[in-house]
Amino acid sequence: MSFLATVLTLYPDMFPGPLGLSMAGRGLQDGLWSLAAHDIRTHATDRHASVDDTPAGGGPGMVMKPDVLARAIDAASAANDPRPRLLMSPRGRPLTQAYVRELAAGSGVVIVCGRFEGVDERVIEARNLIEVSVGDYVLSGGEPAALVLLDAIVRLLPGIMGNDASGNEESFEHGLLEHPQYTRPRQWEGREIPPVLLSGDHAAIARWKRQQSENLTEQRRPDLIRPKDWKK
Amino acid sequence: MSFLATVLTLYPDMFPGPLGLSMAGRGLQDGLWSLAAHDIRTHATDRHASVDDTPAGGGPGMVMKPDVLARAIDAASAANDPRPRLLMSPRGRPLTQAYVRELAAGSGVVIVCGRFEGVDERVIEARNLIEVSVGDYVLSGGEPAALVLLDAIVRLLPGIMGNDASGNEESFEHGLLEHPQYTRPRQWEGREIPPVLLSGDHAAIARWKRQQSENLTEQRRPDLIRPKDWKK
Repeated sequence: MSFLATVLTLYPDMFPGPLGLSMAGRGLQDGLWSLAAHDIRTHATDRHASVDDTPAGGGPGMVMKPDVLARAIDAASAANDPRPRLLMSPRGRPLTQAYVRELAAGSGVVIVCGRFEGVDERVIEARNLIEVSVGDYVLSGGEPAALVLLDAIVRLLPGIMGNDASGNEESFEHGLLEHPQYTRPRQWEGREIPPVLLSGDHAAIARWKRQQSENLTEQRRPDLIRPKDWKK
Repeated sequence: MSFLATVLTLYPDMFPGPLGLSMAGRGLQDGLWSLAAHDIRTHATDRHASVDDTPAGGGPGMVMKPDVLARAIDAASAANDPRPRLLMSPRGRPLTQAYVRELAAGSGVVIVCGRFEGVDERVIEARNLIEVSVGDYVLSGGEPAALVLLDAIVRLLPGIMGNDASGNEESFEHGLLEHPQYTRPRQWEGREIPPVLLSGDHAAIARWKRQQSENLTEQRRPDLIRPKDWKK
């Protein structure tokens, strides 16, 4: 069975979107993974097909109704579905490359995309939704975050990347940012490729790359070297 | 002049993608912002329309050529273009809601989407590209990251959000994660809305929300309360 991503959304037309092109799109066509986008609104029961209501206790915006969302989840993912159920949310566990690898090693994911001010907290508890955040900023809804999460996962699935080695020398795979890259021409607008990279001395090149990665990480992201762990 | 987003990409068909729907899509139709996606490949000069080449010093994957990318940037953004030029990259400055607000207050952005192993470092220097990261994970290219960045920016542009107040009571706007939300029904699957939210006591409700936000942030993201700043 290939990796199955099930997405619950009010905007099923946003999928596959960018995931229908490039390497993810070819993988989709070749059956290396599959994607099912379900419209939450089809589970509304009133004549206005309401999916949201005003927040208890007041406040701006609207909150997604627990009953409608739970029905949508139950219809798309049976109680014994082994796949993790994720809720894209800025309150969630920050997505890391290690977590992406963990998800890519599984059989798939169920992704709930919130909209408006958020989702009734009781659905999160009752359906064991794991809140996941793609970053410390606010989006119009979970959909763009789901596209990013799936892109990160799909490129790691077997057969997707043309050159399997290229997954190993990139940012975060060894806890460091990637070193600078150069390619032809050797001289461009008066700027040279660093001579060591053209020396043919493989040990010296490896040292240079490592040193550059360490310097860049120390300079820009000391938090990656001395991390604070996310706590549940 | 409305906000202008110029995107340089090898996959112009990925745009507007999800940004063509929902509030961003309505804003696009109404001229509240505009989006121009330019194909980098049209600036290649050899007969294979090459945009990448092997990395200097060896290693897996391919690197985007400085000459082709610089021509694409120069064609899309004049030297006196006041808009910041961003390169979506996992090595970049981590995107925050404060930075999103700063970008949304400007006249627009130029976004360069890298692919493959990365972009020749000399273009980053020569064209003053600001590397921006949407999170600590690796994507197939800059395009999904650009969609996320633009979604975050666009929702803050004047006229986009239906209820302007809803931008103020959400995660990160006060340095805290958002409190839990509830809506009708009052009882669902045996779970109640917390009584204080139904009390009508506005001061008590405000205290509860604040306390919940603080507790959640302390529990899940103590780094937001005691941040380590990103350094250039």
